[in-house]
Amino acid sequence: MSAHPRLSLNQATIKRASLAEALEVTAAGGYRAIGLWREPVAEVGLAEASARLTDSGLRFTSLCRGGFFTMPEGPARRASIDGNRRAIEETATLAAAGAPGSTAVLVLVAGGLPEGSRDLVGARARVAEAIAELVPDAEAAGVQLSIEPLHPMYASDRAVVSTLGQALDLAAPFAPGTVGVEVDTFHVWWDPEALDQVARAGREGRIASYQVCDWATPLPGDVLLARHYPGEGVIDFATFTAAVEATGYDRDIEVELFNADIWAAPFAEVVARTAASFDRVVAPHLARAAAPSPA
Amino acid sequence: MSAHPRLSLNQATIKRASLAEALEVTAAGGYRAIGLWREPVAEVGLAEASARLTDSGLRFTSLCRGGFFTMPEGPARRASIDGNRRAIEETATLAAAGAPGSTAVLVLVAGGLPEGSRDLVGARARVAEAIAELVPDAEAAGVQLSIEPLHPMYASDRAVVSTLGQALDLAAPFAPGTVGVEVDTFHVWWDPEALDQVARAGREGRIASYQVCDWATPLPGDVLLARHYPGEGVIDFATFTAAVEATGYDRDIEVELFNADIWAAPFAEVVARTAASFDRVVAPHLARAAAPSPA
Repeated sequence: MSAHPRLSLNQATIKRASLAEALEVTAAGGYRAIGLWREPVAEVGLAEASARLTDSGLRFTSLCRGGFFTMPEGPARRASIDGNRRAIEETATLAAAGAPGSTAVLVLVAGGLPEGSRDLVGARARVAEAIAELVPDAEAAGVQLSIEPLHPMYASDRAVVSTLGQALDLAAPFAPGTVGVEVDTFHVWWDPEALDQVARAGREGRIASYQVCDWATPLPGDVLLARHYPGEGVIDFATFTAAVEATGYDRDIEVELFNADIWAAPFAEVVARTAASFDRVVAPHLARAAAPSPA
Repeated sequence: MSAHPRLSLNQATIKRASLAEALEVTAAGGYRAIGLWREPVAEVGLAEASARLTDSGLRFTSLCRGGFFTMPEGPARRASIDGNRRAIEETATLAAAGAPGSTAVLVLVAGGLPEGSRDLVGARARVAEAIAELVPDAEAAGVQLSIEPLHPMYASDRAVVSTLGQALDLAAPFAPGTVGVEVDTFHVWWDPEALDQVARAGREGRIASYQVCDWATPLPGDVLLARHYPGEGVIDFATFTAAVEATGYDRDIEVELFNADIWAAPFAEVVARTAASFDRVVAPHLARAAAPSPA
């Protein structure tokens, strides 16, 4: 089995796999890199997870996820900030345990409107405050926080950060190595400013991670699970990928799929199909490939 | 029965009513204005529809809808442009038949990506070309085309115009009286630039129509039917309405609800509930009310 040398499997794509299973099937699929989630790491404990990651030989590309800090000051907000501090430490530890070329990136999903609130402007301001509070910890740990804009259909209940431009504005007060942004095609493909903001993100040195997955309609009943293999929807990966590459982005590229059918399929099949779809619609537009991807 | 003097019922809110029923129940509900859809008008014919509208004593606020012109040149595109020309004529006729204060506004929904296409940039360019082609007809008929940005979750299959800023950019080459924009809270509430773009739309004299309805999650299985009575979701109507009023907007305000439960309810109940929700969450923030709304 083989996979493109810059392809990283985000663990959520095989959500039902344990950490051990995810590492094994990803390495067996010929991948060189993986993005992890906090919950399966916590199941075995950080030390054990780090050891297994090292044993896998895979690069670590990101930890999902921090964030969820839109609530007003109080115990819940303190708990969220504390949880994010732990996530920063976990990210640093895992990046150190991954193979050379690992990136200490912690993905931040902002969180939605607090229950009963209509104050979107206030919620967005509290995201800015939370990031400011976490930056010293991230800097000390050598971790890059990656603000992820989510599709606007999630603005009320999941992420009040909705565009790449907004994420870059939030990142602007801080050093790019400490606060970057996530460019996920699924979330930003529709934005008339998307390509301009990708270029801006590049100029500002803030693309922490490029993630690819596709958009198709009709949306499923649970719109969280609307993500498709690259090439199975309407996103123009040629243009998007070329735009990201033109910024000089040279990190790994994650595929992260939330999709009930994909989650129900055998892990090895999903891993292989992900690699094949990446080879077909993303790889041809990469300027930097360490090695050509065997078909 | 009474309703706020600036409240207009968009006919889609009582989708299953015939034109005659819609006019009757809207007038009986104390409304002074209605927005119509082409299909129920066509059912009785334009002349008969105009006569009934005149008899109702209601103002006409808009016709839904033109647009759906993202396809490349060919017979389908010609048919679309011709259909839009007829819609312009219908708008002019209905506005003349409505009570004084009627506005000759034709709402344009751009249309999604053509079947099998991933060329979002091209589709958007064809929207600009279609508008340019229709402007002389609209100008001659005294009709204002209103470009409606739809929520980005509809970008692939319904409207490639996704933000107010994009709609204003599309309108920019033309006179504001001929090409304006729709400000529908449901579609734009999430946008970090929404309030700035409302102010811009005001400065440029382009707010053709302000429509209010609410956003709530979870979204229904058919995301087209996700619209709620004002006040039953998360949108901050105080801030939004004040921003629109601050531009000097003084036209009627439509409520347009696509919602299976609302469509299944008795027309008179929907009409009354719409008026009550408007009184409660929108009316208090209006700078210009011809008369106070009796509770």
